Amino acid sequence: MKKSAERLEKIDLEAVEDIAVGAALLGTGGGGDPHVGKLMAIQSIQKNGPVKLIDVEDVPDDALVVPVAMMGAPTVLVEKVPSGREIFNAFESLQNFLGKEVFAVLPIEAGGVNSMIPIMVAAEKKVPLVDVDGMGRAFPELQMVTYHLFGISATPMVLADEKGNSLLLKTINNFWTESLARNATVVMGGSVMIAIYPMTGKQVKQAGIRNIVSYSAQIGRVIREALKRGDDPIEALLKATDGIPLFKGKISDVIRRTTGGFVRGEAYLDGIDQYKGESFTINFQNENLIALRNGKVVATVPDLICVVDAHTGLPITTEGLRYGQRVFVLGIPCDEKWRTEKGIQTVGPHYFGYDVDYIPVEELNLQ
Amino acid sequence: MKKSAERLEKIDLEAVEDIAVGAALLGTGGGGDPHVGKLMAIQSIQKNGPVKLIDVEDVPDDALVVPVAMMGAPTVLVEKVPSGREIFNAFESLQNFLGKEVFAVLPIEAGGVNSMIPIMVAAEKKVPLVDVDGMGRAFPELQMVTYHLFGISATPMVLADEKGNSLLLKTINNFWTESLARNATVVMGGSVMIAIYPMTGKQVKQAGIRNIVSYSAQIGRVIREALKRGDDPIEALLKATDGIPLFKGKISDVIRRTTGGFVRGEAYLDGIDQYKGESFTINFQNENLIALRNGKVVATVPDLICVVDAHTGLPITTEGLRYGQRVFVLGIPCDEKWRTEKGIQTVGPHYFGYDVDYIPVEELNLQ
Repeated sequence: MKKSAERLEKIDLEAVEDIAVGAALLGTGGGGDPHVGKLMAIQSIQKNGPVKLIDVEDVPDDALVVPVAMMGAPTVLVEKVPSGREIFNAFESLQNFLGKEVFAVLPIEAGGVNSMIPIMVAAEKKVPLVDVDGMGRAFPELQMVTYHLFGISATPMVLADEKGNSLLLKTINNFWTESLARNATVVMGGSVMIAIYPMTGKQVKQAGIRNIVSYSAQIGRVIREALKRGDDPIEALLKATDGIPLFKGKISDVIRRTTGGFVRGEAYLDGIDQYKGESFTINFQNENLIALRNGKVVATVPDLICVVDAHTGLPITTEGLRYGQRVFVLGIPCDEKWRTEKGIQTVGPHYFGYDVDYIPVEELNLQ
Repeated sequence: MKKSAERLEKIDLEAVEDIAVGAALLGTGGGGDPHVGKLMAIQSIQKNGPVKLIDVEDVPDDALVVPVAMMGAPTVLVEKVPSGREIFNAFESLQNFLGKEVFAVLPIEAGGVNSMIPIMVAAEKKVPLVDVDGMGRAFPELQMVTYHLFGISATPMVLADEKGNSLLLKTINNFWTESLARNATVVMGGSVMIAIYPMTGKQVKQAGIRNIVSYSAQIGRVIREALKRGDDPIEALLKATDGIPLFKGKISDVIRRTTGGFVRGEAYLDGIDQYKGESFTINFQNENLIALRNGKVVATVPDLICVVDAHTGLPITTEGLRYGQRVFVLGIPCDEKWRTEKGIQTVGPHYFGYDVDYIPVEELNLQ
């Protein structure tokens, strides 16, 4: 991840627009649609004023911080509008259970919705947002966070649905959390709101991925300004992210199925411009997992595979992929925390069932 | 239900034997195997001494009482031995969450295991057991209790497994509780321990089915004493329960499948003695639901359909049914609370998918 992001100090309506776009890009197809997410955060900021964004170093070591998020298949969220109360229900239930004030909230991952939910909670609960997350991207399962790599428990966690049901989990490990929570999510209608991985300031400093909110805002801003100036947004995006061009093409087919609480599928692309005559495939499970150009692997998890509109540079989520769209695909190197042995074991291509060893995207695409 | 049961005041090792047998009979095939259940309660009484059994009238109106039980397919419990800790985990988690001392525990239903678990908890936690339950028999789903008929919420409830995982549910109604808890039970391996329907003394006096523990003990004692004297235990059993003879036969086939957290199936019987040449079928979902003699309905839920060994009078659970067994089947009228409109709607034959109207077992079998 590019470390040069300027620190943002408060999140106002303009910053929300930029963060939603930037986080949707880092969401690599998952983490929810930025339009849905933005609406939720904008309402809260209009009502309560801007949100204070603090550096992870400004969290006291013994303070309690809590990531809040949506869990489930993002396609469901598009159709199933949250009541707006369930995330506060999750937050309050967890705070009550822990018997300690939450000092600040944070995103669990990047993504159009999951970058916005913590902003909404921060605004309503009048607590700061910490400029840190647990992925530096988005991943489909609960144990796929850097907190897990550092032995931090996902529980106690709370799931809450829009009807008013909630569930507090305490598990012996993060795989049981994933299994029980995923199942409950399906029973609860496919998507729920969660408060998870309650941590101390000390833990989040050690295990989190820093400056992710500022970085998302920077990506969004770079695209917005390039479009405003009439510059090529893709060029600006590649520069801002140290991104690696993987393909430019027209979507010829998308296969998508919602099973077991996930959206799984494949997108097929036919090359255009400099890629004319070439083919490209992306496999996804909520997030883009592996990309092949002319049958050869050019990027895999945990590196980021990002699909953007070929003209505007704006990110397209897996549920937004449509036949005939002209898109650009870029790869972005993941955070170094994922490139460890435990990181690759947790989120590498083998875990997702691909018989492919992880090779960093920049090595796979040496010119 | 026969109301003449002598009040038992303490539960010692002999009472445990009688209660396990009597409760297994009232369990109508479900509620767990008495051998497994007994072992758990005996250990606790040996260690902590007898359990005090109190009348429901002796519970203060504002005291907190909590039913504790096993949930899941009873066939699973036979293979999956509880660690012994999970029921205390469930009890303690619920007590901590409610922030109030539990005054006494009670059974949620009759049954070989579910009559014993509250005895075990009472012994270990040194609280009394209340002589009341929520069914006067056993039923397969969580909303199938008289507490539900009186508008009492099943949640907050806790599920705990033998591995150490637990789950606290808060739902908007008891059907959501059933759905979420059933699903979690399947993920947790098919059977879990639960603490559910936390209630006040006032509520349990209004909604509970009284003297059920004493009544179970009386049934067990009647069978035991008849066998000791060399009398016919079936005759004694019919007399003790106001039971109605439905059939005597040899099991010719049992079909049993564990799906969705339940054991569903059918048992087929060929008549012997006075029923020679006749046929009998019992359909069950954990518990016996409907019985047909020569194709004609002779008993349905909520009345009790009890299968006992034709020689010993000892109850046989649905998981204990075996080809070639000689059994006697009796019907027992259910508690009046079930014979209300809401009662029949909640646990009558229509709810279980049978296109049959409920007619009391004594009317179906007028001689």
